[in-house]
Amino acid sequence: MAYTVPVIEALVQALRQLPGVGPRSARRMAYALLERKRPVMGELASALAHADQVVRHCERCNNLSDAPLCGICQSARRNPKLLCVVETPADVSAIEATGAFDGYYFVLMGHLSPLDGIGPEALHLDRFERLLDEGGFEEVILATNPTVEGEATAHFLADLVQRHGLRATRIAHGVPVGGELEFVDRGTLSSALSGRRAIEP
Amino acid sequence: MAYTVPVIEALVQALRQLPGVGPRSARRMAYALLERKRPVMGELASALAHADQVVRHCERCNNLSDAPLCGICQSARRNPKLLCVVETPADVSAIEATGAFDGYYFVLMGHLSPLDGIGPEALHLDRFERLLDEGGFEEVILATNPTVEGEATAHFLADLVQRHGLRATRIAHGVPVGGELEFVDRGTLSSALSGRRAIEP
Repeated sequence: MAYTVPVIEALVQALRQLPGVGPRSARRMAYALLERKRPVMGELASALAHADQVVRHCERCNNLSDAPLCGICQSARRNPKLLCVVETPADVSAIEATGAFDGYYFVLMGHLSPLDGIGPEALHLDRFERLLDEGGFEEVILATNPTVEGEATAHFLADLVQRHGLRATRIAHGVPVGGELEFVDRGTLSSALSGRRAIEP
Repeated sequence: MAYTVPVIEALVQALRQLPGVGPRSARRMAYALLERKRPVMGELASALAHADQVVRHCERCNNLSDAPLCGICQSARRNPKLLCVVETPADVSAIEATGAFDGYYFVLMGHLSPLDGIGPEALHLDRFERLLDEGGFEEVILATNPTVEGEATAHFLADLVQRHGLRATRIAHGVPVGGELEFVDRGTLSSALSGRRAIEP
């Protein structure tokens, strides 16, 4: 039996639960922390405990927030006519990082997936419909992922949005900026062709 | 300015200090924890805090331990004639995992590196010499890394060990098991040639 220190093994096991961390990198992290980065241990422990305690979902849009309403929902400086629907808070963070959108968000916390038992009721759609009725939006941008489930979810939500008398739009799919046609998959390339736009003269 | 939640940003910054974790994977970890792995947050926070509080260096061999003496130094079932000198506690863990060594260890917590101001006094050599005098060992295996600094450290320690009347040995360098000659670097290949062993008839 190899020699082990239980408290170090417990740390390795806990680190392994981080996404993308396998047994070897968990062990490397544990030893690096214990041998050379002691101050990081307390820092990370309290950052985890503090975030776990403080971060909840915004009562209006479901985004992650440290208050009942997230900073975006609280802001009066956003475009009140635009609502963007995404699957996860990480998607909000990604779109905010572009600086290309200044409206409000609604976070589904998932996508429709009948095979996994995830139907409309799991996506907080009661709250979504209330937002559509009360929000004063004109356009709802459906920015779910370009996967089978994300597309199905976008179709389902487009119907819902239109029944509330609002305009539904879908984010564009196509060749990634900086990508090369040769290396783009067929589905993306055929989306890029069918979604072609006129070049203004 | 992109929208951020300070407590989430603090968590991302703390995760970035883990070895091998860049800004993108730190963000991915933070969102995965907050969105889907809430129980892991408390678990990891307490594993970190507990290990930080409990883990110290063994008073005899410098290995990481949850007691004044580590489990190996406390054990009476190890071979009392063999001492293996390594650079770090992670090296002890790696050697223990092989099951190929059953003696005791001494952990230098580094290697000689005059350019970085790391001389013999930083490597706990007073304690090492006391161990050589009192330990009753016959052979000291120098298992520092096969780097310039590790080799220099092994040479320095070999002198010390021999002055104490003990036998000093160095771990073998050569072609890694399962490796292919074609892809082995020149230094390793020349070590493998000069360290060749007779095949018993």
